[in-house]
Amino acid sequence: MSAEIPSESPRVTPRSTSSLEGHSIVTLDDMSTTDIQDILDRAGYIDAHRAEVSHTCDGRVLATLFYEPSTRTRLSFETAMLRLGGKVIGFAGAQLASVTKGESISDTLKTVSNYADVVAIRHPKEGAALVAAEASRVPVINAGDGGHMHPTQTLADLATLRSRFGRITDLTVGLCGDLTFGRTVHSLIETLCRFGDVHFVLISPEELTTPQYVLDRIDATPSCSYTEVRDLTAVIGDLDVLYMTRVQKERFFNEDDYLRLRDTYILDEAKLAMSKPDMAVLHPLPRVNEIAVEVDSDPRAAYFDQVRNGMLVRMALESMVVGDDLAGYEPARPLSGKVGI
Amino acid sequence: MSAEIPSESPRVTPRSTSSLEGHSIVTLDDMSTTDIQDILDRAGYIDAHRAEVSHTCDGRVLATLFYEPSTRTRLSFETAMLRLGGKVIGFAGAQLASVTKGESISDTLKTVSNYADVVAIRHPKEGAALVAAEASRVPVINAGDGGHMHPTQTLADLATLRSRFGRITDLTVGLCGDLTFGRTVHSLIETLCRFGDVHFVLISPEELTTPQYVLDRIDATPSCSYTEVRDLTAVIGDLDVLYMTRVQKERFFNEDDYLRLRDTYILDEAKLAMSKPDMAVLHPLPRVNEIAVEVDSDPRAAYFDQVRNGMLVRMALESMVVGDDLAGYEPARPLSGKVGI
Amino acid sequence: MSAEIPSESPRVTPRSTSSLEGHSIVTLDDMSTTDIQDILDRAGYIDAHRAEVSHTCDGRVLATLFYEPSTRTRLSFETAMLRLGGKVIGFAGAQLASVTKGESISDTLKTVSNYADVVAIRHPKEGAALVAAEASRVPVINAGDGGHMHPTQTLADLATLRSRFGRITDLTVGLCGDLTFGRTVHSLIETLCRFGDVHFVLISPEELTTPQYVLDRIDATPSCSYTEVRDLTAVIGDLDVLYMTRVQKERFFNEDDYLRLRDTYILDEAKLAMSKPDMAVLHPLPRVNEIAVEVDSDPRAAYFDQVRNGMLVRMALESMVVGDDLAGYEPARPLSGKVGI
Repeated sequence: MSAEIPSESPRVTPRSTSSLEGHSIVTLDDMSTTDIQDILDRAGYIDAHRAEVSHTCDGRVLATLFYEPSTRTRLSFETAMLRLGGKVIGFAGAQLASVTKGESISDTLKTVSNYADVVAIRHPKEGAALVAAEASRVPVINAGDGGHMHPTQTLADLATLRSRFGRITDLTVGLCGDLTFGRTVHSLIETLCRFGDVHFVLISPEELTTPQYVLDRIDATPSCSYTEVRDLTAVIGDLDVLYMTRVQKERFFNEDDYLRLRDTYILDEAKLAMSKPDMAVLHPLPRVNEIAVEVDSDPRAAYFDQVRNGMLVRMALESMVVGDDLAGYEPARPLSGKVGI
Repeated sequence: MSAEIPSESPRVTPRSTSSLEGHSIVTLDDMSTTDIQDILDRAGYIDAHRAEVSHTCDGRVLATLFYEPSTRTRLSFETAMLRLGGKVIGFAGAQLASVTKGESISDTLKTVSNYADVVAIRHPKEGAALVAAEASRVPVINAGDGGHMHPTQTLADLATLRSRFGRITDLTVGLCGDLTFGRTVHSLIETLCRFGDVHFVLISPEELTTPQYVLDRIDATPSCSYTEVRDLTAVIGDLDVLYMTRVQKERFFNEDDYLRLRDTYILDEAKLAMSKPDMAVLHPLPRVNEIAVEVDSDPRAAYFDQVRNGMLVRMALESMVVGDDLAGYEPARPLSGKVGI
Repeated sequence: MSAEIPSESPRVTPRSTSSLEGHSIVTLDDMSTTDIQDILDRAGYIDAHRAEVSHTCDGRVLATLFYEPSTRTRLSFETAMLRLGGKVIGFAGAQLASVTKGESISDTLKTVSNYADVVAIRHPKEGAALVAAEASRVPVINAGDGGHMHPTQTLADLATLRSRFGRITDLTVGLCGDLTFGRTVHSLIETLCRFGDVHFVLISPEELTTPQYVLDRIDATPSCSYTEVRDLTAVIGDLDVLYMTRVQKERFFNEDDYLRLRDTYILDEAKLAMSKPDMAVLHPLPRVNEIAVEVDSDPRAAYFDQVRNGMLVRMALESMVVGDDLAGYEPARPLSGKVGI
């Protein structure tokens, strides 16, 4: 129950309906599959009840501690809290000089815990979010550390599948481009395997195939399977989902290789014409040229929906960890036992 | 009707009374003279009814996308939304690295459209605001692109004339200083010509006279006329308005010229003593030394009023483009046919 | 009375109960001891009535003008206004280019006075806050200028003593480390002398003893006294308060001196074991290594409480200077005659 809620408007429910209340979210392993489904349920509810939820976090303060700039992620976390009625403090990139000057992440978190009800942290060093979570007296959400994998990106991907298909199972999911270094892709595969019933089509050049530990994860899931291919056009007609990723020039050995491969892995109208009419095209953004701009107006383009869904899952998660219930929302599932920090 | 308005407080009016609802404002040409007068009416109403309008934009979010720093303009746009009850997200200057990194303005706007209800953009490249407006699903207001001319500066100037004289016509308007490169001045002349009945006194050194296309614009307006002079003191007694501009040292051929001219075009108490008691002194700010600090306390000094009026016209414009009506405000004029994007 | 308060909720009290309403706070000399006690009273009240005070400054805007970055101070001022229901605009560090470009502090304040109800300013030049206060039409609070001494740091220190001991007199206060250059310490001594009944124990190396003018201030206060010592362990058992400060390496003549002294002035569990069970350890933060991390979990550690108290006194001060009364708060003391700007 929030100290900031005026006494004249007492909460009807005595405690939060979320099992994530008070918990930090450093990786998706901090959540059960029931938790994840609850987040997706709430994200969908929020989207359909924008006005009803607009005072959920009245009086709350989110701190965005961005030790490296990541404007799109920061704006998403901030908008999420603002649209729930809360407020935002923080710093980003160039402003942080005085914070880093001789102060540990732990001390910064012990300080900011006095100001904020929830913290979103982004840091260039792997493990920084865990250190922050351990020092903080309020929940911390990892907005990317080290490899820039962060749990809310994958939640945004899942929410987009759910909004397009009504489910995140029973799908043929193509992943295309740099499957070696793309952590977003690895995290999505790993999480879909927790739910099961997905066939993955892994589309990449020889130089950028999926790491063995990710393939092992699929193999260890009885209801999941995969195919590895080189050519997008050969398989695009089979896909429910096409997840595009950036192919970075510096990954390649020479210019010729790059140009050859790049053309194979750029999605344009011609390739799109071979796909199912309800296929969903995802991309973590920002894109460079992996998807031609002409594709944006096609109803299959779902990558700007991902942006909206990213905001919605952050609204769900922020309200859950601070323990503020969404007006009118009834959890569909029994509360899970929480695995976490 | 805003999705953010709680269901328990339905709007009385079913739709906005502004013809600018949903429209982007890239240049003043996007507005009819009726629209402009409506903005000035609303700015005046807002100033007199601060409390009544303080919840006009409850639940709205403004995004300020400042690709170059312009703190005073950014703070004005932000304060405007905050004083209407809305919230603000955004970035400025040094924070923007991750936005520009390989992402087009169009993609950024397609992303930010998911977060905000209205966008104010400032960009060093001419035409950027138009590109942004075309990509955005929400209204975009140009806060300066390229030459840094932006429509709300001219609206602030007009609102200041209105608040001082009750009208923006039937005035003798002196413009003093660098009339060659000062786009603020060109935009003000152009806009006053749309309303007519103004005599312009163009006061500048030989080196910095008004461009021919601006003079042609005045000539093409039957009710307007102009005089070109070199000496401020010779004409200051005739003026209702004296619009001062900065004379930049680097415009001049040599130091002697600069010093000679500078003294002629600096407004101080001695020169001010020759003017009408109700003359209004305007300046787009920041000033360097074109106006002596001693002038600030003179009632004719209107340049800090311009700052307040800038905020008021931005309050009017932001509420109009998102379609939120001001409580108690009745438009004095029939709605115009909208010219615009 | 605020122009932003909706007409349907008129203030019950016709005027503020604070004698600081409308006043700038540049130094602690701008306040009487009665004012200071009122601030501490209000800070305590706010801490115990977070919900009741959460709409105290509805409709107010704080401007944070940080001409040099100081993230922890900025976040504290901003959180204070947000937790009172107000809003925040401002700039920090790298964003300020366009502000400084040819504009005086006075002009910036005359501009920002149109946007904000109260300003917090930080500037590298001594005297900048006074210049700002004189130009501004709204109250200005000094958040550090020049030596970075700022009144709200000392107020946070006093509030921490009060919350720990119920009083700020009748205490034995140890100050340890760099007592020559530590302005925080000088300001605390000076202010405690205004209230009297304190014995100071000044613990520093020879090279970093307390300046004579500070010793003179104590000597001039009949109820205060001091002892100067070199060794923390010799006196720690006598102290009610131990105020640690940073010992900067560059103050020393050679590396050996530094290492020798450093070890003497680092607080760890072993030294802490010699102190009274209810001694309070303060530190202005950020710390480098003057206090071992193992001390953080000891109940005597009060330095993160100082952070919370810093926010609380800023909430008190911001509400007082804008003239907004705290719901339910009754001043315990008659209003003082105000000394100030």
